[in-house]
Amino acid sequence: MKDKRKIQIGVIGDSQIRSNYQYEIAYESGREIALAGAILICGGRTGVMEAACKGVYDEGGISVGILPHDLSDPGVNDFLTIRIPTLLNWARNAIIPLASDGIIACGGNVGTLSELSFASLYRKPLVCITSISGWSKEIGKRGSLDYQKQSQIMTAETGKEAVQKILKAVSFSK
Amino acid sequence: MKDKRKIQIGVIGDSQIRSNYQYEIAYESGREIALAGAILICGGRTGVMEAACKGVYDEGGISVGILPHDLSDPGVNDFLTIRIPTLLNWARNAIIPLASDGIIACGGNVGTLSELSFASLYRKPLVCITSISGWSKEIGKRGSLDYQKQSQIMTAETGKEAVQKILKAVSFSK
Amino acid sequence: MKDKRKIQIGVIGDSQIRSNYQYEIAYESGREIALAGAILICGGRTGVMEAACKGVYDEGGISVGILPHDLSDPGVNDFLTIRIPTLLNWARNAIIPLASDGIIACGGNVGTLSELSFASLYRKPLVCITSISGWSKEIGKRGSLDYQKQSQIMTAETGKEAVQKILKAVSFSK
Amino acid sequence: MKDKRKIQIGVIGDSQIRSNYQYEIAYESGREIALAGAILICGGRTGVMEAACKGVYDEGGISVGILPHDLSDPGVNDFLTIRIPTLLNWARNAIIPLASDGIIACGGNVGTLSELSFASLYRKPLVCITSISGWSKEIGKRGSLDYQKQSQIMTAETGKEAVQKILKAVSFSK
Repeated sequence: MKDKRKIQIGVIGDSQIRSNYQYEIAYESGREIALAGAILICGGRTGVMEAACKGVYDEGGISVGILPHDLSDPGVNDFLTIRIPTLLNWARNAIIPLASDGIIACGGNVGTLSELSFASLYRKPLVCITSISGWSKEIGKRGSLDYQKQSQIMTAETGKEAVQKILKAVSFSK
Repeated sequence: MKDKRKIQIGVIGDSQIRSNYQYEIAYESGREIALAGAILICGGRTGVMEAACKGVYDEGGISVGILPHDLSDPGVNDFLTIRIPTLLNWARNAIIPLASDGIIACGGNVGTLSELSFASLYRKPLVCITSISGWSKEIGKRGSLDYQKQSQIMTAETGKEAVQKILKAVSFSK
Repeated sequence: MKDKRKIQIGVIGDSQIRSNYQYEIAYESGREIALAGAILICGGRTGVMEAACKGVYDEGGISVGILPHDLSDPGVNDFLTIRIPTLLNWARNAIIPLASDGIIACGGNVGTLSELSFASLYRKPLVCITSISGWSKEIGKRGSLDYQKQSQIMTAETGKEAVQKILKAVSFSK
Repeated sequence: MKDKRKIQIGVIGDSQIRSNYQYEIAYESGREIALAGAILICGGRTGVMEAACKGVYDEGGISVGILPHDLSDPGVNDFLTIRIPTLLNWARNAIIPLASDGIIACGGNVGTLSELSFASLYRKPLVCITSISGWSKEIGKRGSLDYQKQSQIMTAETGKEAVQKILKAVSFSK
């Protein structure tokens, strides 16, 4: 049965959307994750997280939010299927990439950089969106996060391309 | 939309089943959770956790396991829908009751006692099964965990009764 | 050099003092820890934690507070030598007994019960003060927390007796 | 009394030393921290952490290691004064910068990058050593980690210069 479990794909990025284009890519990532029958893992709050959850929601899929505070947090978005409050504050950033079979980074400020670092420490397949500004573009262009280049870093321009690359990488790593 | 989210019910107890009767109560709890359209939250491993997940699985419901280690942990049960590895070791016991709108304790050794303590600290509705041995029986009979008696402790003899009491308590607390 | 490190002793209990007698026992525990050249580990806040830190402070010893929030928390006591803010909220209760070679429980409400549970899970030497009310008295009289009775539970009436028993247990377990 | 507490300075970097020069800078940072009467906070293991602890040890100062595993971890260095095992695995990287009033980064691979990210999220004074390779050099040259440039990033060539800059920044921020 273990092999039949659904793939879990993380989407990380800014908690405040910077451009319509960024919103569209995050939304499309969520939509494609749901269409592939996979589960979205994210931080459960606003910005990129909310856009991805909305994409999943519109396709009737499942999204899981690993929340930094408790359920009284007004920043929790309305489209989440499952809420996992942790009260771990920023340390919950260590769990989001760990709970993902592969991660898509869509822009992102320094909180996203901490998640990218953990994704690399756990050697998870990682796709960095390079068509928008933020850490995903910088790290995508850099090509690695660790000096031994042990973690996979792929790049994509769109949400659909990103999800396809994660699905391919995860099936290879099985 | 927030009010439409599904109720999340935690089931906690021994990681090694002590009796067929304990297995049946945990299995029935999972089954009733799925039948009520709620989501099971648990530790994702063996014993009571596995029995509850099997109950959910047989009804086509959704179970979430908050795991202490990573996905290579051989103790992860086969019936989980969603796996949230944390690498937090025992500290993950603080998250399971927090991520539950209400908790059912089914027997349980000292790990369960830590979860019961957190359930009380978070003032979550809690049903202790008193028809089997373990901490759920002791605490159910004691009637409270905190000296100010600020947390609700209910008791039940069966899984069905336990789920009904949680559903009622959660709807009142909304 | 490893064998020369100082022994670290945890003191846990109510965050609000219930009686002068409880304050005295916690204060005496801290004082005796410092006089033995050991280091106090605690939650770093008020009540029993503050009394123990004051005892260490008055003897010029070292106390470490594993704090649930950050340094802006007004509940941090003034007598701590070293402050370890964690932002882990209640989950920091999993760390206090882990960072202690042995633990003294002095009264205590449900937060203390969670720490007692972790102390047992980690199989740490544990002394429960039975001369005051609270979980330390209940668990001390019960004699164990786990059903296999794998964790040591000792009892004491005074802070001095408690520290002596911990020191003896830790030297045996080395 | 609160104002009299000792300053706590974090030193982060590679767990495997890359050059004698890196060892010397980390050692010198530890030595200068102890000479200033401050306390060293670090990850408690090998490489830069061990070099900094040795520097503190040789001056009779106090070092605190926030450890990822428990005390049986063979990677714990021999020069630590106080050991805080957490069993939180990589998530302990969120605590090291939080428990530091200011942080010195000395080289560093992707684990260090996660700590740099948290230092920025907590807006802690941060000195990046630019005279050796690794993330401290890259981030020092970049000048910021967050896109709003809300966190202070200073640079230094030596351990002594780094400690002086942290002491100055911490006294200003008091």
